[in-house]
Amino acid sequence: MSQDITLYIDSQFFSPYAMFAYVALREKRLPFAIQKMDLAGTAHRAPAYRQLSLTGRVPTLVHGDFSLSESSAIVEYLDDAFPPPRHLALLPASLQHRARARQVQAWLRTDLVALREERSTAVIFRQPSSSPLSASGKAAAQQLFEAADQLINERGEDLFGAWCMADTELALMLKRLVSNGDPVPAKLHAYVERQWQRPSVQAWLGHQEG
Amino acid sequence: MSQDITLYIDSQFFSPYAMFAYVALREKRLPFAIQKMDLAGTAHRAPAYRQLSLTGRVPTLVHGDFSLSESSAIVEYLDDAFPPPRHLALLPASLQHRARARQVQAWLRTDLVALREERSTAVIFRQPSSSPLSASGKAAAQQLFEAADQLINERGEDLFGAWCMADTELALMLKRLVSNGDPVPAKLHAYVERQWQRPSVQAWLGHQEG
Repeated sequence: MSQDITLYIDSQFFSPYAMFAYVALREKRLPFAIQKMDLAGTAHRAPAYRQLSLTGRVPTLVHGDFSLSESSAIVEYLDDAFPPPRHLALLPASLQHRARARQVQAWLRTDLVALREERSTAVIFRQPSSSPLSASGKAAAQQLFEAADQLINERGEDLFGAWCMADTELALMLKRLVSNGDPVPAKLHAYVERQWQRPSVQAWLGHQEG
Repeated sequence: MSQDITLYIDSQFFSPYAMFAYVALREKRLPFAIQKMDLAGTAHRAPAYRQLSLTGRVPTLVHGDFSLSESSAIVEYLDDAFPPPRHLALLPASLQHRARARQVQAWLRTDLVALREERSTAVIFRQPSSSPLSASGKAAAQQLFEAADQLINERGEDLFGAWCMADTELALMLKRLVSNGDPVPAKLHAYVERQWQRPSVQAWLGHQEG
């Protein structure tokens, strides 16, 4: 398991899914190379990349002669291949917390479409949008707030007693609204700001600048 | 872990994600009750169901006093809570196969949008659509064929040497085209027909009739 690791990501560092794979690798304290793909061009559609990723998607993790795409699968793979206690766990150890974390991860990837479209990660990583949320966007934000309110305790701490990937992923979804100046309940706002200070997230943000 | 299990699904038995949770429970040989939700009505938006599911989504698994939605999280939970050898594994044991299975599961849930829209599961469970695929629909089908061709061997056998959830999930995606009479490469067609004979899938289909 000591082979080289490379992470293929979008050259703008905008993809939230590339960010999650990047954060996972940083949290595991694994050295890795970054290979930037110009998604505006056709690099990710080239046969060599399709072969590597199977589906042409970003991010793709290459570990030795094994390659894997889909950020949720990458997170699980890293937890299986580089388990605690030697490496930080990316998912909670308890059966029910682990299940809830995976529910949150899957939900954020497949629902709240209007929110993801109207508040793309460009509003976080580049500049806010001047368009107000549509009715669908507002409804999605409300749905997010209701679920997040049930999940996050009054002190705005990590979801399951210690950080896990679902914290970064939920914080990113809420951050779309925070960065844009849309109204976000105080408890959720505090949760996001705490998660955003994590060194792995700050390291990702460092790639945005300059 | 001997508490009662209930699966909340759509009353039409159309949701592919409800089907996957159902198949997972059958494969584990766990007894469970089915609670039908009328998605055309507002049952899944009622506060009690939102509380249970956190997000109002179908399917939701209730196991004792724990409830969980998102089919991929349900599959993982069942594999963690009812592991082999006492129960059949839903995911491969090998690190790399396990990762690839999760990649396929995540990909099928988040990509190929045009194919999922133009060939909804109604074309499998009720009746084919008379509309030809759009250019986007055809492109998605082609993408599916290319990935499936790399994953499935010449004899059209299970993806990873023994059945896993990714087999049923990939077969369902291909079956959208097979059921509709859209052209599907012979090897993939054979794979689908084999997967479709699985007793757990046949049990699901039994709910469609009558």
